[in-house]
Formats: sequence, C-alpha cells, structure tokens
Amino acid sequence: MKKFQAEIDVMPKKEILDPQGKAVTGSMKNLGLTEIQNVRIGKHISLEIEAADEETANIKVDTACKSLLANLIMESYTFSIKAV
Amino acid sequence: MKKFQAEIDVMPKKEILDPQGKAVTGSMKNLGLTEIQNVRIGKHISLEIEAADEETANIKVDTACKSLLANLIMESYTFSIKAV
Repeated sequence: MKKFQAEIDVMPKKEILDPQGKAVTGSMKNLGLTEIQNVRIGKHISLEIEAADEETANIKVDTACKSLLANLIMESYTFSIKAV
Repeated sequence: MKKFQAEIDVMPKKEILDPQGKAVTGSMKNLGLTEIQNVRIGKHISLEIEAADEETANIKVDTACKSLLANLIMESYTFSIKAV
C-alpha cells in the first residue's frame, strides 16, 4: 500500500450567491485594498489516504467528496493527489 | 493594470487541534473509507485583483491574508497568483 496526500477544494458554485465572500470583498475596500474583487470563500481539505495505486486513491477521494465533503447541489469540488 | 486571479489556502497550523477534521476522519470510517486519515479542514479563498504587475499583486494578496483572511496565531496560509 502506498500513501498519498490529497488536496481538495470545495467551492460554492458560480451561480450561487456567496454572502461570506461578498462581506469580505466589502471589508477589503474598508482596508484600502480596493483592487480586490469577487472574493469567494470555500473549504480546503487535506487528507492522507492509503491505496494500492494512484487510480484507486483517486476513486476513493472522489467518493469521499461526493458522499461527505461537498454538497453537490451548492458546491463543486476539485482535487489533486500526490504520492508521499 | 493587469488582472490576476489568486487562489489562497488558509489551514489550521499543524500544532493546533482541528476538531472539524477529526470529526470528518471519524465519519470517513463510518462510510467505509477506512484508508482515509488525518483530515484537516481549512478555507479556500479565490479572488480577483488588479495590479500593475505580478509582484505588486503578490504584495497586495499577502497584505489581505495577513490583515483579514488568516488568523496568524492559529492558521497559516499559502497562495498562488496567475494572470487572467
């Protein structure tokens, strides 16, 4: 069994309003960072996984995202895997 | 002025307990994904920034992280910037 490190980003879908991001965009202006726009805030998840090969690890992480980490109605996810 | 897209990860520091991640690690086992360990959960922030060049954009994003996006006592951050 090899060990892999997965880095997952779960973000609110583009069509979905992100009130937390909107609030932070506003705060940026108050801080004088007026060049910053369109802030969107999601989750970053890192995890370790043991699997026979990278493809199996990919499938497992995809299952974890679908069944637990992301709410597919409102969120989309991307991930990358590397051997450690 | 050029436009850049920044992708920021804000994660709890290694020395700091991450109860949310611990809970998710436990849930993975309940879902049958016993190979998944050491889940840690942080924030992923994407934003757009206008700047004269990449170096200026880097400095602005770093300022935003330090002053608003990350709590440096408990969290560390990494980011990448690319022109759009």
